Amino acid sequence: MYDLIIIGGGPAGIAAGIYATRKKLNTLLISRDFIGQVGKAFLIENYPGFEEIRGVALMERFKKHLEKFAIDINEGEEVSKISKRKDGTFEVTTSQKDRYFARAIIVASGRDPRPLEIPGEKEFLGRGVSYCTTCDAPLFQDKDVVVIGGGNSGFGAALELSKYCPKIYILHRGSKPRADEIVQERVKKTKKIKVLLNTDIKEIKGKNFVESIVYQDLKIKKQKTIIVQGVFVQIGSIPATGFVRGLVDFNEKDEIKIDSKTFSIKTPGLFAAGDVTDVPIKQIVVAAGEGVKAALSVYEYLQNVKIKNQNAK
Amino acid sequence: MYDLIIIGGGPAGIAAGIYATRKKLNTLLISRDFIGQVGKAFLIENYPGFEEIRGVALMERFKKHLEKFAIDINEGEEVSKISKRKDGTFEVTTSQKDRYFARAIIVASGRDPRPLEIPGEKEFLGRGVSYCTTCDAPLFQDKDVVVIGGGNSGFGAALELSKYCPKIYILHRGSKPRADEIVQERVKKTKKIKVLLNTDIKEIKGKNFVESIVYQDLKIKKQKTIIVQGVFVQIGSIPATGFVRGLVDFNEKDEIKIDSKTFSIKTPGLFAAGDVTDVPIKQIVVAAGEGVKAALSVYEYLQNVKIKNQNAK
Repeated sequence: MYDLIIIGGGPAGIAAGIYATRKKLNTLLISRDFIGQVGKAFLIENYPGFEEIRGVALMERFKKHLEKFAIDINEGEEVSKISKRKDGTFEVTTSQKDRYFARAIIVASGRDPRPLEIPGEKEFLGRGVSYCTTCDAPLFQDKDVVVIGGGNSGFGAALELSKYCPKIYILHRGSKPRADEIVQERVKKTKKIKVLLNTDIKEIKGKNFVESIVYQDLKIKKQKTIIVQGVFVQIGSIPATGFVRGLVDFNEKDEIKIDSKTFSIKTPGLFAAGDVTDVPIKQIVVAAGEGVKAALSVYEYLQNVKIKNQNAK
Repeated sequence: MYDLIIIGGGPAGIAAGIYATRKKLNTLLISRDFIGQVGKAFLIENYPGFEEIRGVALMERFKKHLEKFAIDINEGEEVSKISKRKDGTFEVTTSQKDRYFARAIIVASGRDPRPLEIPGEKEFLGRGVSYCTTCDAPLFQDKDVVVIGGGNSGFGAALELSKYCPKIYILHRGSKPRADEIVQERVKKTKKIKVLLNTDIKEIKGKNFVESIVYQDLKIKKQKTIIVQGVFVQIGSIPATGFVRGLVDFNEKDEIKIDSKTFSIKTPGLFAAGDVTDVPIKQIVVAAGEGVKAALSVYEYLQNVKIKNQNAK
């Protein structure tokens, strides 16, 4: 029986782990990997303390920091279900049917890439369609690619791809990119990158591999085709919450609702932190801060449970 | 006229500065120094990404990171007053009577050490009484000292002093130290440090310099004296808010009340972040996260003001 199981190895989960173990909570952290959203970022310039660091390098530092403390880590498994037991503790089941028990849980499972949900996307996954430039960019050496999405991640992906690809198109649905001005300027200076606004992606075409992408130009209302060998989808993300339904409430974006003062959710002993929640800003240092809040709330919660149990005796 | 003035150069102010300048807000940061609460910490082991770093070193990294971006910094002055002008913008006056103007403000002024408020404390300040071990510990080579306060900062101060002093007493008012278990264990291993619980400090005595400290043992209800040459006060801190009264609401701890979802306070255009606010957890990475939230809220606020002004034309 653990004091605490943390689900997720991103900034929120890791920060929670650091604080929980420093409070001597007997803690298990379960994570599919230590890459996640952060590890997919090419270059991070806004985590205070690191002027410039690659996403994978920051995640490595986070993980190494966590491992300094006495914590059990289960890397490689995904949590498939959490259930509350009669005595108030929790049972956690993984995809490989391992079972773990804990007095408290922090859900810090973050987000998965949002799919386009258009024809060709699933069919060409791994054959030209990718959600992660940091993982796959080198495979597209000397190939033309499109990046779908005009936020920081889309613009960042295009910059990363510009080291490998002769021509990169950024396709953005809106009439104005959402990326930070400083990132937009950097893209402007890179002659290889062309930004196309007001685009609605219709289909990814090819035989064995991606050969072209079809989109509607929303301004002139005309269908257009671009010949490309790669499609990087960077249109945001969805919270990873499948295993926790029934125990939490969701907002309209499918994010776990938390009380921003007490960090509690509707099931006592169950806490959530980071990008999986309705915290309005999704940023690394924010998620880390929220992880700390959750860990210290768990500590408080377990202290109170202990006192109650003592009083009951 | 700046878009934004940030008051304070701690984690919240610096994180806000990084994000604001990346959003191309024309920003001024005013700070007495870049030491603050963090710089006074001997060793920081819980800011994710740095397994072990001295407080001053982390603050240097933060400052260097901030200076990478296009931001004006006024170091060395304190803000003495903020007032809202008729057109909705703000005037900021410093202790040296400099005046600055901005469309929005983030108050991230942090906290000052809480004084004991007992006889001898003011009289012997700088003559044996100190609030900062990192600043003053080396001055106490081969001298016996007391540390007042049984939290992380008190225990940390004692550990730092153990490199210089033959004997260190930690005096804590409560019956149980509040420091993290991991820090308590480290103190236990240091034979030079003695922890005295249930103590109520009465007076600091001496001629030109501190010579002894008098306390009430709350358990046996007896007055006791310890012969020491140094007194390090580590009993927490109070929010630095003198310059902002009238424009904000305070909670019972004199912290600025913020709406934890919208980060707004009662004066439009005025935001607050970090340990000066009622955010319940005072930790470096939490404060940094709150700074980011405030900066992005300011960005939103200024965008809305711009749209309103355009519509009015």
